[in-house]
Amino acid sequence: MLIVKKFGGTSVGDLDRIQNVANRVQKSIQEGHQVVVVVSAMSGETNKLVGYAEHFSKNPSPAEVDMLLSSGERVTASLMSIALNEMGHSTVAMTGRQAGIITTSKHTKARIEEINPEYMQAALDKGKIVVVAGFQGVNEHGVITTLGRGGSDLSAVAIAGALQADLCEIYTDVNGIYTTDPRIEPKAKKLDQISYEEMLEFASLGAKVLQNRSVEMAKKLNVNLVTRSSFTDEEGTLITKEENIMEQPLVSGVALDRNQARVSLIGVADRPGIAADIFNTLAQEEINVDVILQTVAHDGTTNIDFTVPTNELEVAKNIVKIFVDKDEIKSTDFNEAIAKVSIVGVGMKSHAGVAAKAFSTMANENINIRMISTSEIKVSMVIEEKYAELAVRSLHNAFDLDK
Amino acid sequence: MLIVKKFGGTSVGDLDRIQNVANRVQKSIQEGHQVVVVVSAMSGETNKLVGYAEHFSKNPSPAEVDMLLSSGERVTASLMSIALNEMGHSTVAMTGRQAGIITTSKHTKARIEEINPEYMQAALDKGKIVVVAGFQGVNEHGVITTLGRGGSDLSAVAIAGALQADLCEIYTDVNGIYTTDPRIEPKAKKLDQISYEEMLEFASLGAKVLQNRSVEMAKKLNVNLVTRSSFTDEEGTLITKEENIMEQPLVSGVALDRNQARVSLIGVADRPGIAADIFNTLAQEEINVDVILQTVAHDGTTNIDFTVPTNELEVAKNIVKIFVDKDEIKSTDFNEAIAKVSIVGVGMKSHAGVAAKAFSTMANENINIRMISTSEIKVSMVIEEKYAELAVRSLHNAFDLDK
Repeated sequence: MLIVKKFGGTSVGDLDRIQNVANRVQKSIQEGHQVVVVVSAMSGETNKLVGYAEHFSKNPSPAEVDMLLSSGERVTASLMSIALNEMGHSTVAMTGRQAGIITTSKHTKARIEEINPEYMQAALDKGKIVVVAGFQGVNEHGVITTLGRGGSDLSAVAIAGALQADLCEIYTDVNGIYTTDPRIEPKAKKLDQISYEEMLEFASLGAKVLQNRSVEMAKKLNVNLVTRSSFTDEEGTLITKEENIMEQPLVSGVALDRNQARVSLIGVADRPGIAADIFNTLAQEEINVDVILQTVAHDGTTNIDFTVPTNELEVAKNIVKIFVDKDEIKSTDFNEAIAKVSIVGVGMKSHAGVAAKAFSTMANENINIRMISTSEIKVSMVIEEKYAELAVRSLHNAFDLDK
Repeated sequence: MLIVKKFGGTSVGDLDRIQNVANRVQKSIQEGHQVVVVVSAMSGETNKLVGYAEHFSKNPSPAEVDMLLSSGERVTASLMSIALNEMGHSTVAMTGRQAGIITTSKHTKARIEEINPEYMQAALDKGKIVVVAGFQGVNEHGVITTLGRGGSDLSAVAIAGALQADLCEIYTDVNGIYTTDPRIEPKAKKLDQISYEEMLEFASLGAKVLQNRSVEMAKKLNVNLVTRSSFTDEEGTLITKEENIMEQPLVSGVALDRNQARVSLIGVADRPGIAADIFNTLAQEEINVDVILQTVAHDGTTNIDFTVPTNELEVAKNIVKIFVDKDEIKSTDFNEAIAKVSIVGVGMKSHAGVAAKAFSTMANENINIRMISTSEIKVSMVIEEKYAELAVRSLHNAFDLDK
């Protein structure tokens, strides 16, 4: 098999850990696989470099920041290649440019536009282990760019896609994807497999293992993605096409997002387009509005409730105030003590009654559901934050996720 | 004027020093100059990275070492560009590749083959300050190379040549070139100007300010080179064509090299080609033989004396032993307690009696000259090491270098 293995900052956090990763790569080679290794900067390095830049400027030039930060992954890639070479393997370390990663010119947040994998492929054909500095590419003019948060994962997935690799393994400090957060529900089970769509919902709902852009790219390029731990030999979780998953459970997991705040707009003016105005203004300020609930009272006044990430609440308040000042909203209320608990599963598509079962589970625990949002494969419920853990455990139990 | 300014590791050793350098560059801009800044890695960084590599391998792959080490200069270049940018200047940081530095493929010791300065020139034409990561280039396949010791100086000189800069300033922690080492002769004077040829002799004789390859390239490309301190505003020493130097002193300076050992071969066999055999074998092992003296005694036996750098003495001993074992040399003697003191000056070419004056100066101090070596612009004398400082001071005084 051709396997792309990506190791994050914690996995290559010091020289001993780099050696451990090299040992792990060697094991895979000895099992007969071809391997491309994608590495992040050693943990702490990127922050150190950012600190250096901020010593000189609060707002350093993004092109310079990219040249600065990209050096971190290069150091790890060189060292990994040296370690594997010393163990008797033929290796080659590559920068993003050498790996053929062409991006947009949006420095510090570039998107991958294409990958020209010829140089990597030639090295693989010669029996070499290819070690690529993640997180970076070059724009069409050859200027270094970086891919933003989760960029090394993205490098790995894109490379796996371009090389048509059999597997792309993302190594982190967790074992895989769980049915829910084991710190809340100790009976949580690691999932063997999960569909791209479910993973996307989980990531949106606050699961930190993988960022959506990596999962989306894996889905687009049809890359079989595995998330697993670099510290144990335990199998991880395979993220793949829905069709590849033989047995689809009704519900795959329960997600909890505490990082939400509710904004209530009371007495919204009865003017056509007012809701569009409000949400457009929020969108312009890049506020991520999630669940929206509009209610019309018996007296004809309209209320709109919606949730935003807690750290965007202040900006949202300022925007809402504009409409209050124009007398288009009577009053407002804000509540940070809420949580969003969700059940996710592709099995829902073909089974009725999943949402109803979730609601009655909440009712049995006397938990009031304040807002509801559903998709084909997800039911989200906004509740008071104090009930968050109880809700997670009850749902986990109700859908037999510990079995 | 278009000025290339190169700052070494000590000059950019920490964030405050980087800011100081940025201030210095700004001053030059305010005086109306165009500036290209070439930077080394922050002092200590390269050694740290080498240490990392050696953690994994005693003999790390040179290509990987180049990718590793080149990151150090990139960090400094990015930070310098950020600092200048924050001060209101339009800047662009460039890697060796972006600066168009094409080298041979000999990793860790690449030679510059050509410079394509179009990207730098375009940036300068737009009024930007160009900041280049020194010490690095790419080979014809775009793979990162480094230039070995003194590599950043070389980058600066080559860039100055390619851009036809008016001046290439090499900033270090010393003020310039002195008539002799001020620690030995406090009356030593800083030279305002010196010819390439004299500088080459000084560098060969152990002056550490500039390496010969940079001076040779400056000579070849006709680059006016200035060496000066990054910690003071004092003018440095201009290294330029002999024709540019109006007043040529008889002797420009006195150099001392303690890092020499004498090898004496006593009773060398009377066979044609024996000397060639010995010195060829030494050359194959890359022993740098300096002064050679062959004497034939009255009884017809031949002795050969030569000097080698102290750190190459052990290897030289082993080679010489081969000839002793073959009975082609009767006996050997080795002496590390020697020093080579030299006077250098282009003025010698047109003045007789300089060597004679040097010899009588030694004689007046009762210093025995063991070996002599001369060139058009240099007289070197090997003496007992204990007389080294005395010899330097006497020569400095005899040739009025403190005037």
